[in-house]
Amino acid sequence: MDSISSPQAEMLLDEEPQGGPTFLDRLFDHGLLIRTGVDGLYGRSGAFESVVEALDRLISRLGAADGAEVMRFPPGMSRPAFERSGYLKGFPNLAGTIHSFCGDGAGHAEILACVEEGRDWTDQQEATDVVLTPAACYPLYPVAAARGALPAEGRLFDLQSYCFRREPSLEPTRMQLFRMREYVRMGSPEQVLAFRESWLERGTAMMRDLGLPLAIDVANDPFFGRAGRMLANNQRAQGLKFELNVPVNSVEKPTACLSFNYHQDHFGSTWELRQADGSVAHTACVGFGLERITLALLKHHGLDLAAWPEAVRDALWG
Amino acid sequence: MDSISSPQAEMLLDEEPQGGPTFLDRLFDHGLLIRTGVDGLYGRSGAFESVVEALDRLISRLGAADGAEVMRFPPGMSRPAFERSGYLKGFPNLAGTIHSFCGDGAGHAEILACVEEGRDWTDQQEATDVVLTPAACYPLYPVAAARGALPAEGRLFDLQSYCFRREPSLEPTRMQLFRMREYVRMGSPEQVLAFRESWLERGTAMMRDLGLPLAIDVANDPFFGRAGRMLANNQRAQGLKFELNVPVNSVEKPTACLSFNYHQDHFGSTWELRQADGSVAHTACVGFGLERITLALLKHHGLDLAAWPEAVRDALWG
Repeated sequence: MDSISSPQAEMLLDEEPQGGPTFLDRLFDHGLLIRTGVDGLYGRSGAFESVVEALDRLISRLGAADGAEVMRFPPGMSRPAFERSGYLKGFPNLAGTIHSFCGDGAGHAEILACVEEGRDWTDQQEATDVVLTPAACYPLYPVAAARGALPAEGRLFDLQSYCFRREPSLEPTRMQLFRMREYVRMGSPEQVLAFRESWLERGTAMMRDLGLPLAIDVANDPFFGRAGRMLANNQRAQGLKFELNVPVNSVEKPTACLSFNYHQDHFGSTWELRQADGSVAHTACVGFGLERITLALLKHHGLDLAAWPEAVRDALWG
Repeated sequence: MDSISSPQAEMLLDEEPQGGPTFLDRLFDHGLLIRTGVDGLYGRSGAFESVVEALDRLISRLGAADGAEVMRFPPGMSRPAFERSGYLKGFPNLAGTIHSFCGDGAGHAEILACVEEGRDWTDQQEATDVVLTPAACYPLYPVAAARGALPAEGRLFDLQSYCFRREPSLEPTRMQLFRMREYVRMGSPEQVLAFRESWLERGTAMMRDLGLPLAIDVANDPFFGRAGRMLANNQRAQGLKFELNVPVNSVEKPTACLSFNYHQDHFGSTWELRQADGSVAHTACVGFGLERITLALLKHHGLDLAAWPEAVRDALWG
């Protein structure tokens, strides 16, 4: 697929004035995001959440006719399932494992003494069987595979969850904990590619209706290390993943707000998920970064929601 | 306050037949909860989520007139804030710290070899500055304190987040990751106790409208270890925390679905939060266990939402 751009994509971004407050600072000053002392970990105001919720409902409306099965997973998943998923091959540095204290009273006393004296107390923490969810669809594949072979028409799922990626940053669009909405299609290559194509169109139309300048391009995932460069080249060369980018932090490095991902038979093979005819299932997903789209709206339409263009407010709350 | 019971509280719970499927099994079989392979970590169906969302809206309606400030925090919080909060004194075993890999290509190769061979790969994980949120209000106190002294009328906040507690269990009401809705009041002792009293009434009325048998009693928190017994005795003797209990897993050990917690000046002192007159602020909160109330409804009204009593459906979706 060729890269496509909306007429607005070349629109100049209203850049932050040199030396003035950054976009992140302005979000804090207006109370839309709330500082926690950790970069990329923020509270959200009621106004911010009202946009996230409106987007979530808008995406539901756009997908309603497809009759996806709704599932919601908590922000953590089984570690064995996470290990098997293959995530550690590409992104070991982004994963978050959950550790807990399994000691006794003496260990507890040591923890409290460490905290009191400002020393590290976490060396008694042991890895649990829970890992933070890296993308909303990761907990789904083993669940879908456990149901047996797909029906002839395949399956379609509707997911949303908080996801974790360990990449502390001052770019407001790069949060450590953020929400991802996803539709996931499982079936034949033709079925899942047709699904991806339909969401490339719907997602583009949705973002144009929201008055956002955009461009669709092949994805540029930050695979880890030297071996990762090969994974990234392969992903690009095969056109496996597209992103819908909107300039938020800068025009030069726009922000991926939606992604359209064809996994081929990766998850099908990994989880032994089969089509009705017994061949390995293919999968594809469309992901919506709910905080990122919200931030794109705040950047382009301003920090006062009541002053957003009527058409945008109608698309969200009409 | 005396313990109060609704007339229904002595109603016999429709116990699972001996040797038949447990309540948890029936929830899996009906697809309301979804297995992940980890006890206490489950997916939720669209039907389950529709109840959680309806409860969330119902609680919003009940509190609407108070004009609480809405804030939403992600399921993780700053580790320094967590350490200062005092949570580790009472519940070190329930906390979940987030760890990540900070190594290089050689470390990455070692991780992948471990996963391949089924060996533990987590010893290269290092503690980050993020901890899973143990209760929805924990991230709030430092944020509120950073604003300076309270106004004369105090403050009121509206929170909801996924919370983590490391207590794997086969009781469906004891999940490792679950959602807690909270209102948090900050002000004088009189202000925060009046708030707690009003929610004892509202919460009781809400649960009666939902057709649930209930009893309110002093809380019985599972403080850790020998020193914990003193903390628990103190909490009970001073009537600091009440719980609204509904029989779900059994009549003998009913489930705390709501809690009403007077922290005295604990968080005020910890975070140097002051009243308008300069004295240390007192705080109180009411917490709603959204999954627990949902499970209580499923237990008492059945697994088919469409067959729930008209009055209950009206209260939720009317």
